[in-house]
Amino acid sequence: MPTRRMRIVVIGGLAAGPSAASKAKRVNPAAEVILIERTPYISYGICEIPYYLTGEYSSNDNLIVYSPDRLRREKNVIVWTETEVEYIDRRSRVIQVKDTKRGIRRKEEYDKLILATGSVPRKLECMDVEYENVFTIKELARAYQLKRFLTDQKPRKAVVIGGGYIGLEMVESLRKTGVDVTLIHRHQYPFSDIGVQTGELLVSVLREHGVYFVPEASVEGFGVASDGRVNRVITVGGAYDADLVIVAVGVRPNVSIAQRAGIEIGVTGGIQTDESQMTNRDGIYAAGDCCQVKNLITRRPMYIPLATIASKTGWVAGENAAGGRAVFKGAIRNIAIRVFEYELARVGLSEAQAREARFPIVIESIEAPSRVLGMGRAATLTVTYIAHKQSRKLLGAELIGKDGAAHRANVLASMLQLGATVDEVATLDLMYAPPFSPLRDPLLIAANQILKRL
Amino acid sequence: MPTRRMRIVVIGGLAAGPSAASKAKRVNPAAEVILIERTPYISYGICEIPYYLTGEYSSNDNLIVYSPDRLRREKNVIVWTETEVEYIDRRSRVIQVKDTKRGIRRKEEYDKLILATGSVPRKLECMDVEYENVFTIKELARAYQLKRFLTDQKPRKAVVIGGGYIGLEMVESLRKTGVDVTLIHRHQYPFSDIGVQTGELLVSVLREHGVYFVPEASVEGFGVASDGRVNRVITVGGAYDADLVIVAVGVRPNVSIAQRAGIEIGVTGGIQTDESQMTNRDGIYAAGDCCQVKNLITRRPMYIPLATIASKTGWVAGENAAGGRAVFKGAIRNIAIRVFEYELARVGLSEAQAREARFPIVIESIEAPSRVLGMGRAATLTVTYIAHKQSRKLLGAELIGKDGAAHRANVLASMLQLGATVDEVATLDLMYAPPFSPLRDPLLIAANQILKRL
Repeated sequence: MPTRRMRIVVIGGLAAGPSAASKAKRVNPAAEVILIERTPYISYGICEIPYYLTGEYSSNDNLIVYSPDRLRREKNVIVWTETEVEYIDRRSRVIQVKDTKRGIRRKEEYDKLILATGSVPRKLECMDVEYENVFTIKELARAYQLKRFLTDQKPRKAVVIGGGYIGLEMVESLRKTGVDVTLIHRHQYPFSDIGVQTGELLVSVLREHGVYFVPEASVEGFGVASDGRVNRVITVGGAYDADLVIVAVGVRPNVSIAQRAGIEIGVTGGIQTDESQMTNRDGIYAAGDCCQVKNLITRRPMYIPLATIASKTGWVAGENAAGGRAVFKGAIRNIAIRVFEYELARVGLSEAQAREARFPIVIESIEAPSRVLGMGRAATLTVTYIAHKQSRKLLGAELIGKDGAAHRANVLASMLQLGATVDEVATLDLMYAPPFSPLRDPLLIAANQILKRL
Repeated sequence: MPTRRMRIVVIGGLAAGPSAASKAKRVNPAAEVILIERTPYISYGICEIPYYLTGEYSSNDNLIVYSPDRLRREKNVIVWTETEVEYIDRRSRVIQVKDTKRGIRRKEEYDKLILATGSVPRKLECMDVEYENVFTIKELARAYQLKRFLTDQKPRKAVVIGGGYIGLEMVESLRKTGVDVTLIHRHQYPFSDIGVQTGELLVSVLREHGVYFVPEASVEGFGVASDGRVNRVITVGGAYDADLVIVAVGVRPNVSIAQRAGIEIGVTGGIQTDESQMTNRDGIYAAGDCCQVKNLITRRPMYIPLATIASKTGWVAGENAAGGRAVFKGAIRNIAIRVFEYELARVGLSEAQAREARFPIVIESIEAPSRVLGMGRAATLTVTYIAHKQSRKLLGAELIGKDGAAHRANVLASMLQLGATVDEVATLDLMYAPPFSPLRDPLLIAANQILKRL
């Protein structure tokens, strides 16, 4: 009797799943690799949704990076869409799947299993009913509906609930399509725990662009019109008219199936894995938004649902499930967004996170030109560093300005990843070329400034 | 009798000198700090000259960063311009200076001396005579004359000799003012020892912009018209008409005064200092383009006349002359330029430099989008890495593309400075945001690609 081929099953088709499946097949071409996805779609760009809505993102009008067919053809991965995994039977290495289109259940064997079940948008209590004009930014089908809603219904007043990066991107996107926008946020500043310099500037940018920003507010409920649509968003402090509501209050790891299978969940609520992305259960790996990862600065677990990390942990899980030996050591947290004409980036720990980790810290902000003054796009860049008082290590940074914030954050992410001190940042041999950068780069000015206080 | 105040004398007023003098005064406000400069000008932006000529650099129409008056007023430094230092008498700690305006010589005492005598443009043999329409890009007075020449004489044909970064910037600048440009270069590609991928692309960019590029050519002489102006540049392979000639064949350290004072000159021809920027002579420091510095990758001396390094070594010399304890450990070499709509950056070692250092190397080039495809300025970026075969360390990189090359080079400069391996580069937690960066940054793609060959 011939030996059955090794079978690797990946659950979840958004970001980590396709990465894991493709990598597994590449590492072990003899294996049968199956990707299972609940919806009809795999591998689409959530991060592009705000730009898809305005038409700025133009190369691909359906947001799909890999269709099931293309993944089959180019990566030799078997893809089952509209298929739900109902449970995992670890002892017999079998999963029960349900073909949701035809309503048929069946059992499937696996040798290695990769959980890439992703995340689910957090919901407000008032969202137990589904409203036609209340959207979260996550599912592809809903993104298509939102685009149609904008075109057909021409909403005039939108309320965005949640000022994290998706909320801020949606604020920009909606303003650009001509909609009045109110942004309701839990904290004093959007983008949550940013410092005063960054926060005040960000709020003023929003206001300049006609965004009505409501800080330190939480939503109590919706007002619903006779047509069944939400027409008001109600907070303790006031109610805001809306004919469109975007809820962007974060996501949580989707771990229900993992939990039922006895897989260890970490302190952050995400699946706990080791550096090979293996769970506590033999032969079961996990990757992407359903997992927690190690913060390379605090060495503690963090939950950070980003596509970059999903893709990297997906590769590692895929390679290891296929017999390889890859590791994912952790992440820094490096997020950049555009808010109208401004670039905003934060990297590493925030002040609050550094204090929570009980690091003795020093914080310093500077303003400096992004390029040689007088050269085209030169603009003031505000750079804030957070450093460890004793070890002198850089712990985190915030950058905001009309020019040169995002890519400079990558320099700092690299320094953070290698555990560099502020002294080392101050001596970096950064380029000087009038069209790109001033003689004294803002990153060096900020380092020299904080050194005076260390 | 009161003790005389400590006197720190800095020779040379362009880049390193003002940095050193300002820093010395800040560190030791009781000291008398004197900056001596041969010309009427100090502290001006040579790097801005190409952009000043086209009017793109608009904030300052005289290129001066600090006037002597401003340095006096704001930094409390005494400034003697149009003053030449004729010799240094080390034993008695005295220099002989000459007021070139009035032709008067005098002796001046010093306690600490900082040599910031800079560099002088290399000249061609045929340049023993000075021609009205032959320019090097270095002295401020000549930059003013060149601007006037462009305006008044309206040259139609320029020959730029030398395709280093200044030559390339001048090519762009002259094309933008509507002049026909021929670029004569010693090597196969401009920017000297760049690789084939980068080089071919750069040459095609120049040609697209109507630049006539003459590779592997050396200038034999000038043809001179009856009005005394150069009208032809003659090479072995051909002669090129010109009514304007720019000579940008590099600079050499200006060490004549140091040599006469018995100060050690290093293998590169620049002054040899230790990490505190002290020369082999007690009490005498050196900084800027007159010095060699340590290449942090090869650990060997290199000569790299850049304003960033001049400014850093100037600070260190100034601080130490004033009694502080600063160090300058060395540099990576990180140069970025704009060539028309392209960004070109090189960082660390070139292939030739790596081979000369006898490193066993692997080279790999990739092409990848600079941002999410379909987002505004997204363009193909070509990234070439040079890595050490055994240690797996990154040794150098080249980046060329219409978008996102220059600032990405800073990430690599930082990795090079910390001695990172390509494995570490491959795991960097770089941001992903559609307006700025794709999911898989070109820097990571290049790292993963070269890893396959290590």
